[in-house]
Amino acid sequence: METVPGWEELAPGVWSRTFRAAGEAHPVGRFVPMSPAEAAGAPWFPARGGIPPDRRGPLPEALGRLPRPSFPLDPAAVTAERVAGRLVVRLPLPPAAPVYGLGLQFFRLNQRGRTRYLRVNSDPRQDTGETHAPVPFYVVDGRGAEPPLPSYGVLVHTARIVTLHCGSTVRREPGRPPAPTRDRTTDPRWQATPPSDWVEAVVAGEAERLEVGILVFGGPDPLTAVRRYNLFFGGGALPPRWALGFWHRTPARYRDAEVLEEAREYRRRGYPCDVVGLEPGWHSAAYPCTYRWSPERFPDPGRLLAQLAAEGFRVNLWEHPWVAPGADLYPRLEPLSGSHTVWGGLAPDYTLPAARAALAQQHEREHLDLGVAGYKLDECDGSELTAHSWMFPAHATFPSGHDGEEMRQLYGLLLQRLTAELFWRRGRRTWGLVRASGAAAPALPYVLYTDLYDHRQYVRAMVNAGFCGLLFAPEVRGARDAEEWVRRLQVACLSPLAMLNAWASGTKPWSFPEAEGAVRAALELRMRLLPYLYTAFARYCLEGVPPVRAMALLPEERLPADPALAARLRAADDQFLLGDDLLVAPLFAGQRERTVLLPEGTWYGLESGEAFPGGREVTVAGDLDTLPVFVLEGAILPLCPPLPHTPQAGQALPLEVRHYGRLPGRLLLYDDDGETLAYARGAYRWLELGVDVGPDGRRTGYAAPEAAEPGPGLAYRPISWRMLG
Amino acid sequence: METVPGWEELAPGVWSRTFRAAGEAHPVGRFVPMSPAEAAGAPWFPARGGIPPDRRGPLPEALGRLPRPSFPLDPAAVTAERVAGRLVVRLPLPPAAPVYGLGLQFFRLNQRGRTRYLRVNSDPRQDTGETHAPVPFYVVDGRGAEPPLPSYGVLVHTARIVTLHCGSTVRREPGRPPAPTRDRTTDPRWQATPPSDWVEAVVAGEAERLEVGILVFGGPDPLTAVRRYNLFFGGGALPPRWALGFWHRTPARYRDAEVLEEAREYRRRGYPCDVVGLEPGWHSAAYPCTYRWSPERFPDPGRLLAQLAAEGFRVNLWEHPWVAPGADLYPRLEPLSGSHTVWGGLAPDYTLPAARAALAQQHEREHLDLGVAGYKLDECDGSELTAHSWMFPAHATFPSGHDGEEMRQLYGLLLQRLTAELFWRRGRRTWGLVRASGAAAPALPYVLYTDLYDHRQYVRAMVNAGFCGLLFAPEVRGARDAEEWVRRLQVACLSPLAMLNAWASGTKPWSFPEAEGAVRAALELRMRLLPYLYTAFARYCLEGVPPVRAMALLPEERLPADPALAARLRAADDQFLLGDDLLVAPLFAGQRERTVLLPEGTWYGLESGEAFPGGREVTVAGDLDTLPVFVLEGAILPLCPPLPHTPQAGQALPLEVRHYGRLPGRLLLYDDDGETLAYARGAYRWLELGVDVGPDGRRTGYAAPEAAEPGPGLAYRPISWRMLG
Repeated sequence: METVPGWEELAPGVWSRTFRAAGEAHPVGRFVPMSPAEAAGAPWFPARGGIPPDRRGPLPEALGRLPRPSFPLDPAAVTAERVAGRLVVRLPLPPAAPVYGLGLQFFRLNQRGRTRYLRVNSDPRQDTGETHAPVPFYVVDGRGAEPPLPSYGVLVHTARIVTLHCGSTVRREPGRPPAPTRDRTTDPRWQATPPSDWVEAVVAGEAERLEVGILVFGGPDPLTAVRRYNLFFGGGALPPRWALGFWHRTPARYRDAEVLEEAREYRRRGYPCDVVGLEPGWHSAAYPCTYRWSPERFPDPGRLLAQLAAEGFRVNLWEHPWVAPGADLYPRLEPLSGSHTVWGGLAPDYTLPAARAALAQQHEREHLDLGVAGYKLDECDGSELTAHSWMFPAHATFPSGHDGEEMRQLYGLLLQRLTAELFWRRGRRTWGLVRASGAAAPALPYVLYTDLYDHRQYVRAMVNAGFCGLLFAPEVRGARDAEEWVRRLQVACLSPLAMLNAWASGTKPWSFPEAEGAVRAALELRMRLLPYLYTAFARYCLEGVPPVRAMALLPEERLPADPALAARLRAADDQFLLGDDLLVAPLFAGQRERTVLLPEGTWYGLESGEAFPGGREVTVAGDLDTLPVFVLEGAILPLCPPLPHTPQAGQALPLEVRHYGRLPGRLLLYDDDGETLAYARGAYRWLELGVDVGPDGRRTGYAAPEAAEPGPGLAYRPISWRMLG
Repeated sequence: METVPGWEELAPGVWSRTFRAAGEAHPVGRFVPMSPAEAAGAPWFPARGGIPPDRRGPLPEALGRLPRPSFPLDPAAVTAERVAGRLVVRLPLPPAAPVYGLGLQFFRLNQRGRTRYLRVNSDPRQDTGETHAPVPFYVVDGRGAEPPLPSYGVLVHTARIVTLHCGSTVRREPGRPPAPTRDRTTDPRWQATPPSDWVEAVVAGEAERLEVGILVFGGPDPLTAVRRYNLFFGGGALPPRWALGFWHRTPARYRDAEVLEEAREYRRRGYPCDVVGLEPGWHSAAYPCTYRWSPERFPDPGRLLAQLAAEGFRVNLWEHPWVAPGADLYPRLEPLSGSHTVWGGLAPDYTLPAARAALAQQHEREHLDLGVAGYKLDECDGSELTAHSWMFPAHATFPSGHDGEEMRQLYGLLLQRLTAELFWRRGRRTWGLVRASGAAAPALPYVLYTDLYDHRQYVRAMVNAGFCGLLFAPEVRGARDAEEWVRRLQVACLSPLAMLNAWASGTKPWSFPEAEGAVRAALELRMRLLPYLYTAFARYCLEGVPPVRAMALLPEERLPADPALAARLRAADDQFLLGDDLLVAPLFAGQRERTVLLPEGTWYGLESGEAFPGGREVTVAGDLDTLPVFVLEGAILPLCPPLPHTPQAGQALPLEVRHYGRLPGRLLLYDDDGETLAYARGAYRWLELGVDVGPDGRRTGYAAPEAAEPGPGLAYRPISWRMLG
């Protein structure tokens, strides 16, 4: 191990150093806030100092298999100082290198030159850094530095709000002559801000509580830095197989029979659907919540859930964290809650085990025992921008000693962990939706969503999420016309979670008759990609590779030789990789053609097999049905039939395995039981599928023979081969 | 004097109490930040503890003439606590009472129910509370309370950013049963947030530096509370007479001859103009600034200024506070500057007398000695929202001991005071533009402006400014068509500062031929209103009455008897009072008619004399030339001819004195030399003009005979009378 003075190597290529405003020790009785890693329950994270040996599970091994980087910074250049109630950590930035990450950002990829205020906020309508899931983790793309340098990531690990100056501050250096400036009036080369080669990370608060961990994740390339971050915090979440099907949410005032009827409508019309989501009306009262079934609308929820299960539907329940005065839980949670109420409800202090236990017991008894499959955790983010300001204030106090600033930053993480653990304790996976998240969250089985609705922002946010161990659902709520409806559903079906959340507008997949073919094709593509997507998520879980990722995470060999084109490709925010082999370049409403920046290699149209030489910009045109998806030459793409819902373990699943182009290919197809945590104990398999190319160019497919038997999961039979390109 | 336990009555009806996070005393060596009142140089404000007897000038007398209020709060209910690095002050709010103020707010009048983050910010594009001039002064309109109570104002006096929760936080009260909530799903009466009857004012920082003064300004009505605030901080600024003329700014790259030519174009075309503003190109280099005349474009600035003066023009110079490395001032200011640069320039610490002296000496020698009349102080606010983030960060350090948070909040105040004092030391008034301001600023001779450009927001901001001792210029930069051009110029001409700032778009008043008549009429109306406007500003200066004010500042007798209509009138944000007798209800682009809420009384069309019964909503319609201005019955309106520029002391000025309606009226017309500070030593006069109404309804005007002689100022002769209505 390389020794880096002042830094501890917590895991291979992960270095840590803690900066405190008030000395190095933890005085007895001093309150130390829960960190994001603790809130998220990141399984491998050292609570304070060193990974306990019994927690060194398979993930550190996966970390060990990554290339071994050197410490990417000058250790002496990383310094901290206390300034008037703030702790300021300075880190050098390589000249000109782009800076990616910072969580679910809607407005830009490269954050260099910007000051980011990383507060959890449900109304990220401006490019300030605030968002549902701000993550003070940034990835420096050293390939864009002058000169090029290794890439790396840095996490500023704290429960408090981080203001991150990403090369946006320039310090005067007394004694050094100032940098010359240009005259804006006469010099067209005038630049607003001189370049700064420093990050300044700032947290504010009382000195005794100010503690910031700086975690450095080595590369040498951006994707490896991201994988190291994901693996260090437990690996990406592995969804149950059903979570990759189509999701539908029913109107808030529906009663049981109406919900069942709306679900059955999918079956009758032949549209796939796996999950039915219930909105606030399932509660006896909501805003704030009781968490109790409405006796009027859902007199026998167990029966409804059994009926839905029998017809292949899982049920997801909406809730938010504010506990209604009328809730059974109220008296128990009241002494365990914060000083301020939200929407008239309690804000429980879920850093307290007793508070977690209270909610857990109620949820287990009244929801999980009946078969509920997961939650939609709404409004754990807070806003000052809606018709009113809602959220406990930053100065709220909580019984644990946390203040409102910390609790608002941690709330989404705490709720994700709390609710996930309900299922984990039963040995089962869950998958849900959440409106707030943060650092150390890759292992949490939740997908973010928002009330914003700009479609290009949705794609950009989905791309940005992949830098920081987050997933984003570009859910569909409504559309002004058939074209927008199709474009939104196409993106949703190629995203981490394919959901229609149109209960307020009442729009159904089939609402625009002129779009029915295109919509059906998008939903069916989602179902056909199931084996491919499940494998992509397994790579996220076991190897840290995000299932949706930015062009900036491409490996070096896929970047065009022309540096300007390579820089443009890395900066692209309207196209993305889905898994390892698919490049999605969606059309947006109003577009009948668009440009796509293709990485090096030859790319093929997913359905057409048309070849596109890569390393260049191409233009694709199309009608309403067109969804530009490109497949890399040599890729093995396993497709299954568009089932009405996802299959269960033991079932046989026919595969059409496609191969594109003239390069031989090989795929390890992931499989497990699709429901339980047995995979974490090794109960999974990688099934080899491949194509050999003979000297005459003839392509021959092969599959591991055991693929035909179910193993812990599915039996892939029959397998048919289709060679394209 | 009423004794209020814990509170000191600093002046009649102004109570103060200081809350500190770390004990009551000032330990030796402890750094105490400069307060806004000190930064603004508010003449009567006690530095710490008590007004020095020699500073008790005429303004405390003016304060003493206001109605004497009782302390409007329960003194025991105002409490403070320290919470995790924050100082939280709680103040009760009367149920349902609207809360106005908080500075130059663009998005709403009533701030109740909102959490406001009162940071100085040059991009107030969202309704967060951030703005160029946030002022933690709020006015509680007790007339809207249930039950009605006296009105009052509260200033949270601190150099740090205040987060003001204006009835937006609800504390849980342990031991008290929770307020019942409604079910959003089924109950249409559901409300997002339960009402809160508390303000929580929060500042953050190290305990040793946390000090907040709470100043309570008694009413009993909202206008009196505002007047008390203005008078306490020195009274409103009195402009030199020329500042009430029309302002024009020339393109940044113009040289001397082009500036002169553009000014003369006004004279040739017969449009009024008093002030020519030079933009960045007058500096030898700008962004950052040298403050030195460009030798290429302005080789002989003294000659240019003398020529302009001879033709009736004053010159205003653009500058921003960031000092260029090439500036002569750089070496002197370098050791007196902050840790971080802005746009490559120094950020001088203008809390230091030595830094102020350096800039002052340079400005006096190179600008004032040549005849410069004032400044436009740009970009002293900072933004994180433009193409880059620009401003020193909150954690910047300054030689005085202030941090970046304090300095950003104070910068606009410091610059206003510094530059105003240059003129005051010469016994002369100045008038200028500024992009940042704050608390305690009414006496500073500056008008705010913004880069935002929504016209309705402009009117709302102008109205809001009047609650907090601020003035706002709805300057005109460009328009998509003639209609917008007219609507914007109409409002500009009825605002505190009538300016065309269209140098970037190149638009001139006469650019839209189809609008020339309407534009000329608006500019001429401005000039005709000069005696009226000057008197309105004198009332601001000597009596604290804002020249532009909201309907919410109307006295009780002007509110309609119907409570719902009265509430709507108080909430109106698209009509305003200009002086005491004019109600302006501008038409906005796209409107050919609008509704106006008329206060009680009879109102008359300014030109038509058409009568409108008040206490109701009326609809006014009109074409491009229409500018709805209503005059209150009994008003005496002194109009002068539309001169090409404002007159000088000693000059004779004909007056057309109008009277509207059947009620007798009386006006005290203010007059002084229009240029110097002699008025502060009493060298001014109030000239009585009046109309008697005989038993037969016949109206007879009279004027104080001395009005025909110049006194210190103008000779008003001849006086003609026009009776309307």
